[in-house]
Amino acid sequence: MTAVLAIDAGGTSTRALLVDAGGRCRGFGRGASGNPISSGAEVAAASMASSALAALAAAGAAPADVDLVLLAAAGAGSGAHRDELGRRLAESGLPARPVFASDLLAMFCSGTHLLHGYGLVSGTGAAAIRVDDGRQEAVADGLGWLLGDDGSGFWIGQRVARAALADLDGRGPGTALTTAVRTRLDVPAGLPAREATQALAGYVYTARPVRLADLAVLAFDAAGDPVADAIVTGAARALAATLRAVSSPEVTGPVVMGGGVLARNPALRDAVLATYAGEGDAPQPLVVHDGAVGAAVLALREAGVTVDEAVFGTLVRTVAAQREYPAGH
Amino acid sequence: MTAVLAIDAGGTSTRALLVDAGGRCRGFGRGASGNPISSGAEVAAASMASSALAALAAAGAAPADVDLVLLAAAGAGSGAHRDELGRRLAESGLPARPVFASDLLAMFCSGTHLLHGYGLVSGTGAAAIRVDDGRQEAVADGLGWLLGDDGSGFWIGQRVARAALADLDGRGPGTALTTAVRTRLDVPAGLPAREATQALAGYVYTARPVRLADLAVLAFDAAGDPVADAIVTGAARALAATLRAVSSPEVTGPVVMGGGVLARNPALRDAVLATYAGEGDAPQPLVVHDGAVGAAVLALREAGVTVDEAVFGTLVRTVAAQREYPAGH
Repeated sequence: MTAVLAIDAGGTSTRALLVDAGGRCRGFGRGASGNPISSGAEVAAASMASSALAALAAAGAAPADVDLVLLAAAGAGSGAHRDELGRRLAESGLPARPVFASDLLAMFCSGTHLLHGYGLVSGTGAAAIRVDDGRQEAVADGLGWLLGDDGSGFWIGQRVARAALADLDGRGPGTALTTAVRTRLDVPAGLPAREATQALAGYVYTARPVRLADLAVLAFDAAGDPVADAIVTGAARALAATLRAVSSPEVTGPVVMGGGVLARNPALRDAVLATYAGEGDAPQPLVVHDGAVGAAVLALREAGVTVDEAVFGTLVRTVAAQREYPAGH
Repeated sequence: MTAVLAIDAGGTSTRALLVDAGGRCRGFGRGASGNPISSGAEVAAASMASSALAALAAAGAAPADVDLVLLAAAGAGSGAHRDELGRRLAESGLPARPVFASDLLAMFCSGTHLLHGYGLVSGTGAAAIRVDDGRQEAVADGLGWLLGDDGSGFWIGQRVARAALADLDGRGPGTALTTAVRTRLDVPAGLPAREATQALAGYVYTARPVRLADLAVLAFDAAGDPVADAIVTGAARALAATLRAVSSPEVTGPVVMGGGVLARNPALRDAVLATYAGEGDAPQPLVVHDGAVGAAVLALREAGVTVDEAVFGTLVRTVAAQREYPAGH
């Protein structure tokens, strides 16, 4: 093989990597949201195609050099999106039939070359998987903001907003979150409680519900405030329950943790693992920021390459270098 | 005065009453949703106008007999809606400038002619008010399903759905709610857990979020199931906190309880009042099903009529009779 192209499509941004058989990342490209559910099939496919072309350009490679395209994305299974993406790839001279992979599995493979273990994600949403023999064998949660995503950024952010409103409303205890939310959403400090309540509610209802995830950071910033701490403790408990739901005595291996909420908050990771382990020893977590490396791991495996410790090490190192100092820039 | 026309507009249906100065209901009419927020200003205004004309027709009255129109509705304050309603009323020969009133105050006035007390509503949403000298002096919650409405039908129904999914997913305890939700949403009994989870989530996400309120009844039907009981207990605690947020030592009076969730579940009412009263004696609740009588009370007061116990009694009796055996039908 000459090279594989791996695309890791997320709700906020999309990453594409051109990787050779030795695991060297030769080009890295970025695009806008690649989530066909939130952004629509056409926009998502366009983001993926443009990030792919950026990776090729960075590597100084031609479409004909690409043996295989792998796409890791949530909801990548929708027919309209697959068709649209295939059309865009073919237009660019790339292989028109990408291999589709789970975004959760790509996240796991960003943390380890091992074929067994667990993945836990808390970003805007939240989910856990069990990985056995390199395959995603079980999944828990990932059910979206209305029905699940327990312990996610949305889950935390919604509780932050509700706690601030309950405080303003006299229904709940006073909390430092109230001032933090008012400041974040630009509600004037002088406004009386009921008017501030209405202003905050008006602000939230005009945005998409998932934007409440933006407020999650306020719970961590307010550490020490009993209301904020109770929200974070609840998130840790929820994430531990999600991880426990996929755990099996027959599968031992690392716990790869990803998503913005887990990646940015070491105290939350420790709390999740302590709750998960109970009386036993808490496993060491591996922390990843996205599924870019893992998408490349999956693409290489699909092309028949054995991704051992050495290939994985090369991949991690060269992806990091390309992200920091993109070739050709 | 000859007669007043009172319109009580709700999210599900709209009620209109033609009432004379003695409190006699001479005609009762119904229409579709009169909520300008969920149904749009035009549809809501049309529902109100048609229910008003139905009430006139039932009474065999002419538009010229109407001295005053009062509209009790949530969100009645929006300009577009007021303009549209005024236009529709004028077209029908009715007074084109209706008096606007709070739907929560109309609910309170459906339960008592007294001028002081408290109102607590739990239907699709939830809120509490303090009434002093006939005016709504304080309000708590009513902040909608995303940010408030603690203890409402939505709040309960969402927890029912989440508990069923957590059970199916292995994240939460087993509960009778799971079978109840599967049955209610027509998920085949033979479907494996993950497929059932996806089917339930798919069903919910294709509907409007507030439709989760339809599942609230399952929590009451499953009384005795620990998960269902914990949800109902949580709702009682939340509603008691909302009521406490508006309570003042200077205002004593009845607690009028309304909305489908409170009206249909005496055990929930008892639990709310016991939590609210704490060590003291729980107040006796007055239970109402909607704000129709109260809208008429407010319309009569607006027209200068003193609504005493006798007038209120006449109103309650004649409204009930008209609802059961509409004139002219």
